[in-house]
Amino acid sequence: MSLVLRFPEYRQQAQRMADAAGFPSADVDIHHFPDGESRIRLPEKLPEKVIFCRSLNQPNEKLIELILAAATARRLGAKQITLVAPYLCYMRQDKAFHPGEAISQRIIGELLAGRFDSLITIDPHLHRVHNLQQAVPVEQAITLSATGVMADWLAKQMENPLLIGPDEESVQWVAAIARHNHLDYCVARKERLGDRSVRVTLPEGNYTGRHIVLVDDVASTGRTLEAAARELVPHKPVSISVLVTHALFFGDAQQRLHHVGVEQIWSCDTIPHPTNHIQMAKLLAEVIGEKQ
Amino acid sequence: MSLVLRFPEYRQQAQRMADAAGFPSADVDIHHFPDGESRIRLPEKLPEKVIFCRSLNQPNEKLIELILAAATARRLGAKQITLVAPYLCYMRQDKAFHPGEAISQRIIGELLAGRFDSLITIDPHLHRVHNLQQAVPVEQAITLSATGVMADWLAKQMENPLLIGPDEESVQWVAAIARHNHLDYCVARKERLGDRSVRVTLPEGNYTGRHIVLVDDVASTGRTLEAAARELVPHKPVSISVLVTHALFFGDAQQRLHHVGVEQIWSCDTIPHPTNHIQMAKLLAEVIGEKQ
Repeated sequence: MSLVLRFPEYRQQAQRMADAAGFPSADVDIHHFPDGESRIRLPEKLPEKVIFCRSLNQPNEKLIELILAAATARRLGAKQITLVAPYLCYMRQDKAFHPGEAISQRIIGELLAGRFDSLITIDPHLHRVHNLQQAVPVEQAITLSATGVMADWLAKQMENPLLIGPDEESVQWVAAIARHNHLDYCVARKERLGDRSVRVTLPEGNYTGRHIVLVDDVASTGRTLEAAARELVPHKPVSISVLVTHALFFGDAQQRLHHVGVEQIWSCDTIPHPTNHIQMAKLLAEVIGEKQ
Repeated sequence: MSLVLRFPEYRQQAQRMADAAGFPSADVDIHHFPDGESRIRLPEKLPEKVIFCRSLNQPNEKLIELILAAATARRLGAKQITLVAPYLCYMRQDKAFHPGEAISQRIIGELLAGRFDSLITIDPHLHRVHNLQQAVPVEQAITLSATGVMADWLAKQMENPLLIGPDEESVQWVAAIARHNHLDYCVARKERLGDRSVRVTLPEGNYTGRHIVLVDDVASTGRTLEAAARELVPHKPVSISVLVTHALFFGDAQQRLHHVGVEQIWSCDTIPHPTNHIQMAKLLAEVIGEKQ
């Protein structure tokens, strides 16, 4: 049976996953020295199979600590090391957008692949590289989708909402959730006007008197969701809500959304955030259970 | 001829080294996204030999960025990559002080060794591992000592100071500087009373009417230097100064030293700090010049 190792900032989520799988769990003890170095301590006795569970938002320091932890686990006898990273980092930098630029997805992918035997993640933000194993060439790369759990959760919140994807890229998520619950959905069109400025055009449709749920995989600046909500308001929907997988929500993104009329914001617990309502524990537990 | 690549927070120092060696130099462009990821961009055309110059205080993010930069340099055709890290990180964690603890020195050492062909550093804080190449198993590991440059610089500041090493470990630095300038020196004895509390006992001697210079390799909390200065004051020296290689100086360390009567604090520019007075550019330039 694998031992689940919990990192401080993702402790509860890792604990829930371990409990759902019926696996034992223990803490990775991390001390940050004033000089910026990290001291990592694992339980002194490890089984052959260990699972590190840490989400990789704000990733740089976490990556160094994962490298320290993985090497230490090997020294202590672990033979099969799995990384459960519900949010996976550096997925957007999958090509050199300008000459001389680092293709960070591949470099970080190889860094992880050299240390972990398996990787489990949820809805990675893949663009030009469509296969997780291409990005992170581990022996076993498992991509889960949160959309099923999100759909089940949404079904308990409201009846017959209309789902809207705020841009073309969101179609995969919004369509999956709509199909799962037999709901109407449509996808808006986005034009980027500047670094933080976007224009969203809604498709023709009747939004009046409907519960609207805007669906996306990642909310970072929230500008696209905000622009979509602003377009919706004149149509007088009953409510506008936001349902996202990964809640990055930089700065005042969340307040801005409420300000333009978004009532509820629901996210998965892939990234710890006050909007987390949907737990991934069971979804993750199923796959780590099967790997035994 | 090698191209020196400068990182933003150590740009001037890298520039001075390149100038002293007569080498061309260019910037590593770094952008920090709000999600905590780093985008690295190098000049699109690189020669076969490149030298990354970055000091590794507050190291975790810098290490990830170095990994991204080194892999990108290889992709762009660099064949020989040198890292000049005047301050080298993770040197203190050279064993597992408690069971289950990461031996970070070795893990980070191997991480660097897998990416750089040579490493040049200044007075690394080695304890139980006495050889830099053991800590960082690169093909060529070069340790320089700042003590010669520090001695030359001190000779211009005051005549016939008495040098004091505040604890047993400092003997190597204080002795080297004293020998270089034919100065008196002695070494105090330190007892650790708690996390931030130390007692320093001065050897028998006549400190009255002398210029005293406390010498050490690293100043972090500054508590040892502070305790030594406090012991000296009743002896009525003419002045008390502090001369250190690596100026970490956490929190109010610098003010505390001035508060107990330290007049001047001088440090090398291995770590950027307001107390930097002694430049390493020539010392580093000599060795990168020889490597050509």
